[in-house]
Amino acid sequence: MADADRIKRVAQRVARTKNQGHKVAVVVSALGQTTDELVALAHQVSTEPSGREFDMLLSTGEQVSIALLAMALHDIGCDAISFTGLQLGIITDSAHTKARIISVDKNRIMSELDRGRVVIVAGFQGVSEAREITTLGRGGSDTTAVAIAVALSADICEIYTDVNGVFTADPRIVPNARKLAVTSYDEMLELAGAGAKVLHLRAVELVKKYGIKLHVRSSFEQEEGTLVVAETEEMERHVVSGVSLDKGEAKVSVADVPDVPGTAARLFGPLADRGINVDMIVQSVGANGLNTISFTVPESELKEALETTKKIAAELGARGVECDPAIAKVSAVGVGMRSHSGVAARMFQALGEAGINIHMISTSEIKISCVVDASRAEEAVRVAHDAFELSKLSVEQGTGTR
Amino acid sequence: MADADRIKRVAQRVARTKNQGHKVAVVVSALGQTTDELVALAHQVSTEPSGREFDMLLSTGEQVSIALLAMALHDIGCDAISFTGLQLGIITDSAHTKARIISVDKNRIMSELDRGRVVIVAGFQGVSEAREITTLGRGGSDTTAVAIAVALSADICEIYTDVNGVFTADPRIVPNARKLAVTSYDEMLELAGAGAKVLHLRAVELVKKYGIKLHVRSSFEQEEGTLVVAETEEMERHVVSGVSLDKGEAKVSVADVPDVPGTAARLFGPLADRGINVDMIVQSVGANGLNTISFTVPESELKEALETTKKIAAELGARGVECDPAIAKVSAVGVGMRSHSGVAARMFQALGEAGINIHMISTSEIKISCVVDASRAEEAVRVAHDAFELSKLSVEQGTGTR
Repeated sequence: MADADRIKRVAQRVARTKNQGHKVAVVVSALGQTTDELVALAHQVSTEPSGREFDMLLSTGEQVSIALLAMALHDIGCDAISFTGLQLGIITDSAHTKARIISVDKNRIMSELDRGRVVIVAGFQGVSEAREITTLGRGGSDTTAVAIAVALSADICEIYTDVNGVFTADPRIVPNARKLAVTSYDEMLELAGAGAKVLHLRAVELVKKYGIKLHVRSSFEQEEGTLVVAETEEMERHVVSGVSLDKGEAKVSVADVPDVPGTAARLFGPLADRGINVDMIVQSVGANGLNTISFTVPESELKEALETTKKIAAELGARGVECDPAIAKVSAVGVGMRSHSGVAARMFQALGEAGINIHMISTSEIKISCVVDASRAEEAVRVAHDAFELSKLSVEQGTGTR
Repeated sequence: MADADRIKRVAQRVARTKNQGHKVAVVVSALGQTTDELVALAHQVSTEPSGREFDMLLSTGEQVSIALLAMALHDIGCDAISFTGLQLGIITDSAHTKARIISVDKNRIMSELDRGRVVIVAGFQGVSEAREITTLGRGGSDTTAVAIAVALSADICEIYTDVNGVFTADPRIVPNARKLAVTSYDEMLELAGAGAKVLHLRAVELVKKYGIKLHVRSSFEQEEGTLVVAETEEMERHVVSGVSLDKGEAKVSVADVPDVPGTAARLFGPLADRGINVDMIVQSVGANGLNTISFTVPESELKEALETTKKIAAELGARGVECDPAIAKVSAVGVGMRSHSGVAARMFQALGEAGINIHMISTSEIKISCVVDASRAEEAVRVAHDAFELSKLSVEQGTGTR
């Protein structure tokens, strides 16, 4: 769809909600490929663009969108006013390109809402205490929306996206994946952390913290999406709510590390110091007091992680360091795991029967993650989805909260 | 040239000036067709975009440029920092899309210059006292540059443009037009007002007011352009410095207006009230106490001007109102006119010998303007250019201020 048509459709939708008697604040992100194009331009003029100037550049994408949406609303007789993050006082820390929102000044929004206007807010951006423009990282508009909803004590925060809601698995991988009518904050957190791209992790943290009701739904269709709400008793009855896939990590293994106290700290301390996000960690005890320590890191941080790890491994007297980027993490998530046993075993068995080798395992209260070969990743998702019978609507779910 | 290459070339040029030991503040405008594309988008979503949202939209063009230029400078090892009009405190009135700069806060620029950084400023934009983003109208980046130069008491303000300087006439019309090495503020004002597109009128007003030396030169070539400076005695020796053409006006005539006191005020008062810019006015006295009043307005304001004029003409008992958009204004400008006589006669004679009919005439101290048929406009420029022998470098000019 052309950009102008999309803007007009959004305007229609916003005006409809407004005309139903609601006060409406809308957070918008950049149009189509705008952000990618700006990133490409930056890399054409600079090998390593500075964070400050990168944010100066990228924040223009949302500024274009808010102005156009305001014009489109005016054009259909709906009073509206647009604001950049700076104008609205969306204060963030100064971590350019991945800033975190500290506070939102609600006064300006409130006074415009009270005047009967739709308030249009540029997503993804804010301003540091030093009055520098910052951005929140990919998907950051979700977080802006939630932060605004929190500031306004909104009844509901609706996230319009290119999918119809949160599914039991990615429908491109599992054709019979089912849309969840309801899910809990914790499940959504684990799903977002486990690679489901549907929501920005930080946005989910915020809705959970402030108990805001979130509705994830399609920009293109009218149907209801998925409600993300506080946990209810009914939810406990579903053992597993969804299976997610993360192909963006790589495995690093340090072989034959002498088994002495403080080894893990000596390895992971320096990695943390360099800002490397270590996800799963597994330590296997070998013979002769020698262990193998394996962990996963985002692929984009692999090079730096290997460099650091090799240095430490030499100091520790380990045999060597190996890496494998051709891995994938398959996770099953569900609050029901807390009260049901045997969930992990069911997953391991299903993968084993399909002949899919598991390289690493990690579990949380409501999640089981298995690292498998990247070449078997999609198959592993389908196998787990089938094992937990996620395409079937369970009786409990049919009588659930909606 | 691709956008990234242009940015890199500008960065090279800025770095060179910086490395010569100068403190440098750079004002940049939007890349290539950006502004036109944004305007087109606005008109796709709205029949009549609001000024505030239009400025919100258009100001992104310059924000993209400043960020990219900062990155490109960093990339070649030149410390630099970019600022939007809002961040820098370029305060304007609140007339969206055609705001005027009221003041510039020089503190931030000065402190960054003192730290050895190149300061990159978004042209064309500012912020109103109500903290709304404003823009200055087409060509407004020139005005931003001059305002910054004034605020910093700069030694010189260089305007990089797509021509090599100010010419005795538009070289596309007069192939043997000559580049002026020097011109005066007043000549530049009259030339800008008479349709020469090389500089924003408001920018020239500001350099004149504050006596800033201006250098108009090419973005693409190294050669010297045209200096715009205070008037010198030598300049008086050139009778005419340049001939300009304005095809953007239309003529309105009110026939047989009774010759009573107050008629002009009754006609032009309401036009002024509606914000219509009347340029030339000629009143010819006819027989029987009936006059014809003719005037010119920008073509874009013709419709509104006609509407108003017809109403007033009826009240005045005039015979009728006619209009002619197929006209052009040819002007000869030169500070030497003050001390030389016969300049106007020479122009009229030359046009007459070429068989070009003159519809209206108006003169100022240093300018003669003739309205002719649009179809003869370019020819009229060539005729006037020849009549004043502008393609020849006069002895006085050869020993001029440079």
